[in-house]
Order: sequence, then C-alpha cells, then structure tokens
Amino acid sequence: MQIKKRTSVSAFAPASVANVACGFDVLAFAVEGPGDIVEVSYSDDPGVSIVHIQGDGGLLPREPVENTAGRAAMAMLNSLDGAPEQGISIRIEKKMPLGSGMGSSAASAVATVVALNELLNHPLSRIELLPFALEGELAASGSLHADNVSASLLGGFTLIRSQHPLDVVELPVPDGLIAALFHPNISISTKNTRLILRKSIQMSQAVKQWGNLGGLIAGLYTEDYDLMARSLEDHIVEPARSILIPGFDEMKEDALAEGALGFSISGAGPSVFALCRSEEIANAIRLKMERILDTYNLSVDTYISPINRKGSYILNDEEDPG
Amino acid sequence: MQIKKRTSVSAFAPASVANVACGFDVLAFAVEGPGDIVEVSYSDDPGVSIVHIQGDGGLLPREPVENTAGRAAMAMLNSLDGAPEQGISIRIEKKMPLGSGMGSSAASAVATVVALNELLNHPLSRIELLPFALEGELAASGSLHADNVSASLLGGFTLIRSQHPLDVVELPVPDGLIAALFHPNISISTKNTRLILRKSIQMSQAVKQWGNLGGLIAGLYTEDYDLMARSLEDHIVEPARSILIPGFDEMKEDALAEGALGFSISGAGPSVFALCRSEEIANAIRLKMERILDTYNLSVDTYISPINRKGSYILNDEEDPG
Repeated sequence: MQIKKRTSVSAFAPASVANVACGFDVLAFAVEGPGDIVEVSYSDDPGVSIVHIQGDGGLLPREPVENTAGRAAMAMLNSLDGAPEQGISIRIEKKMPLGSGMGSSAASAVATVVALNELLNHPLSRIELLPFALEGELAASGSLHADNVSASLLGGFTLIRSQHPLDVVELPVPDGLIAALFHPNISISTKNTRLILRKSIQMSQAVKQWGNLGGLIAGLYTEDYDLMARSLEDHIVEPARSILIPGFDEMKEDALAEGALGFSISGAGPSVFALCRSEEIANAIRLKMERILDTYNLSVDTYISPINRKGSYILNDEEDPG
Repeated sequence: MQIKKRTSVSAFAPASVANVACGFDVLAFAVEGPGDIVEVSYSDDPGVSIVHIQGDGGLLPREPVENTAGRAAMAMLNSLDGAPEQGISIRIEKKMPLGSGMGSSAASAVATVVALNELLNHPLSRIELLPFALEGELAASGSLHADNVSASLLGGFTLIRSQHPLDVVELPVPDGLIAALFHPNISISTKNTRLILRKSIQMSQAVKQWGNLGGLIAGLYTEDYDLMARSLEDHIVEPARSILIPGFDEMKEDALAEGALGFSISGAGPSVFALCRSEEIANAIRLKMERILDTYNLSVDTYISPINRKGSYILNDEEDPG
C-alpha cells in the first residue's frame, strides 16, 4: 500500500481577544468567529511564496519574509530536518478586519503553521507550532507577543506565564460564557498604540492589576461569574488607550448596565469586547454599541459567539495518492 | 434551662507568609505553627484592657489603642449593636518572633477577634471578622494590608483581589505541599522595609510578575507543581529587600538545589520561606540554611509544616452557667 500524500491543506484560525482587561500582555481568549483561512500547497517554485491574498484590500505585503503567513512558514520549514524539496505556496483568505485588535495577523500565522504541519504529515505537536506562528507575528507587530497567537492556536483562555522562555498555560473555559466583539470601522496600528503606553507604572496600580488577574483566573477555575466580573478591571492600559476609541466610556457604561461581566479594549483596539453570561445580554449590548457608534458616524462589525474551545483546525481533507 | 455563658475564650492564630514571591501585597498562606494565643475574658473594668503579654520581651504596647489585639477588639465592639456592658480583658501569648515577616501582629489581631466572637456567642461570620483584625494590624504596620490577616484567619492560600473594597478569594491548597519557614535572628521593621520599595516599577517587570501570579494560581488549582515552581519568581520586591537579609542569595541557590519549588522572602522579611513537595526536602533545606546563616553568626528558628487549611481556631471550651 502506498502512503497517501496531501498536496494541499487548508486551516482556519480564529480571531482572539488579548489582554482581557486585567491581563495586559499575558492573557487572551479565542472566539469561534471570525477567523482567517490559509491554504498551503506543494509548489514547483522553490521556497515559500504567497500566491494569493483575499480580503486585505491590497494592504498586506506579498513578500514572504514581510508577511506573517510567509514568515511563519519559512521559520517552520527552516527548523525541520526533513523539510520538503518542493516549494510551498500560500493562499490567504482574510475574513476579519486588519489592524482591528482582534488578532488578525496572529490568525494568519496560526492557520499557516497548522495547515503546513498537516501537509508535512504533522512532524510537530500543536504546542510546538507556537514559536513559528510567533515568528510570523513578528513580521506584523514588530515585537514578539504570544498572547493572540496562543489563544488562536490552542483555543480557550491562555495565559503567557513567561515570554522568554515561552511558557503558555491553558486555562479553563466556564460553560455559557459568551464573547461579544465589536469593531468600530476605524483602524489603529499596534505599533502606535504601544507607543502611548508608559514604560513605568505606579506600584499601587500594578498591585491592583495583579490582584485582578489572580481573581479572574480563580473565577475561571471556579466558574464564579461574580468574581470574574469584579476582576475584569484594567487600571493600567485601558485608561491610556481608550482615549483613541470614540465613545469608549459611554459604550462601557452601557455594556455594564446591560449586564456584561466586563467590558474593555480587545488587544490594542479599536475593537472592544464584552464578556456575557448569555447571548440575550450580548445582543442587547450590540444594540447599544451600534447606537453609540452611530453618533460618531461609525459603523460597527459585531461578532457574538461562545469562547472558542478548539482553536485552529484543518478545514479540508483532500488526499492525493502519492 | 439557662443559657450557658462563657466568661473566657482562647483562640490560636497561625503565622503566615505574605507575598509568596510573585504576589506582592495580594497573596499569602498560613502555616500550622508557630502562632499566637489570645485569651479574652469578661472583666469588671470597663472598656478593653490588655492585662498580660507573654513572649514579647516587653516590646509591645500595653495601651489597647496602640496594641493590635486591643485595637482589633475595640473596633469589633464598637461595631456591634449589642456590645456587652462589661469590659473585656485580653491576655496575649506571643509564640513567634516579633518583626519577623511571619505575620506576628496579624496573628494576635486574628486570635483576638476569633476569641471575642466566640465569647460574644458569634454575632459575626468568619469573613465578617476580617475588617476588625485588619484594623488591629493598622496599629502595628501603620497601613492596612489584608494579606497576613486573611491567611491567618481563613487558612490556606488567600488572594486579596482588592483592598478597597476588601475582596478576599480563598485558593485551593494542593495536597502534600510543605512550607519551611526560616527566621534568622535579626529584626526588621515592616515600616522601613516598605520605604525601600520604589513607588513606580517597570511595565516589563510588572508584566512578568502578573504572568507569574497567574501561573502560580493556575498551578494551585491544577496541582501542577512544575508550574508552581516556574511561577515562584519575584522580579519586583525580592531584588530590593533581599539585600537586607544576610546570605539571601546563597540560601536561595541552595534551597532550589535541594528541590524547593520556590524560595523567597516571607512578607517584609527577614524570615525566608521555601515551598516543598515533602518534609524530607524541607529538612534537607533546613540543614543548608543553618550552615549558611552560621557563617554570618546568626542562629535561625525553623518551622516546617503543611500549609494550614483551617486558619485560626478556638482552643478552650470552658463554659460557666450564666
């Protein structure tokens, strides 16, 4: 019997919410949608090539080393002893807004390494893919941050205990937790939103922040929604970054009044998120967000889903007799 | 049948380790011993009086408002509608070193409110006693910090999610976790050790700290000893305070080499602690600590016990027909 060899594999990787109010640079969760689809295929052209990108409005670099997907694939292939002699071509279907704070670049990098690992007959475990997706993220954000990448790859809530060396902890997902993600149609560069953060912070504020992070994690383990709600506060980053988001204070007030457990900025923004105990609450918040952003002449994309528990996954299963 | 009325109640409250490496001002755990014993009795003298203190070498104030036990009792009595017409006398048996970083003042305050609550026929729940013990701590430390008081009162690992308003989260205690507590025979004032801390810290260090705190809490919930060990790092406070503790770096290196999960300063020091997976490891560390401190001409008190799960408790059960 001949071993069957795939010539093409597609993977989906979801959007994700980094920071989650009290966990700046360490905490993230994935949503069920939206997300990117990346197809990797063997190619007669040597090396890695980006052959098609759809849904980016022509904004993403096509040069592989400058593209998150291309760079992730190159890093992964370089690390493998038995890398294929054939080239790898990549097709990217962006199904979420760029520069939105929803982990768009992370999703492309993650879908790439998950698809490539399947194409190569999975030489690596899921967690071993992380550094290569992270290397892809570097192309987009200019710095290594594992939060979005970890959540998009693994699903659920992920904690980056340490960036160097990389140490990712998978946290439990309480039943019935719904994420509502709102993207006002303005774009902010992650590089710029990092610049507005101070390099030093007050010890007293830091203590509040790590108390809340501890409380949120305890709440996730015990499914204590009240504790989660009390813990979803950000004393450090939200006060600085929220000034860039039109209507932020009104949105937060209304979301909490409608029953959100918490409301804050998704990653570096401008997207914002609410964690809720039901879809009804999420939908009620949606109406309020649309009304508020309309007064700023901004439309909004809304994504409501449970927390994604499975992370990135293979879409097709096309096989070709070798 | 007449209701029996106690005239005297004694309570024990244990020593505790605050900060626990990565949880400055938010995390603490209690040990089984040492601890203080406080006896409260009805008295013909009005108000609160401190009638006896043993084991303090005459160092603690006898004036009730300046004494942690006295102040805690006064705060509690003032808050109760049905406060007794008789006075309350307090006898304190200090069974641990003062100014040691082991929560000595917290233990006296906690034992007082637990004994008084029993004497008064428990008008308050366990958690409702916390603010009064905290008020007692204020007399000793000059500031409100709930970490030692919470652990000594409730036992186990406690997280102060928020100091204002007070929000205490009880964390799980993994089976088989042993605390080794070492008190080099020098004394440091908590007020002074606070002064050497910076008012602002680097954001990058703060991110490491809250990543570790999250990791430690996840480790406690999942009984993941390796994760706990990786998380028991302090990038903020230990580098500053450890310079006040003779031999700290050598002790830490040797404790980790002997298999400690983590080693750091207990509260504000000078006591240090190791968390271990067995008593054998704790005893091996003890020998190393004694040898190192001996080179500094310091003797050391060692306390090895499991993590205390029950906190403060009533010692006697003397009843007097009313």
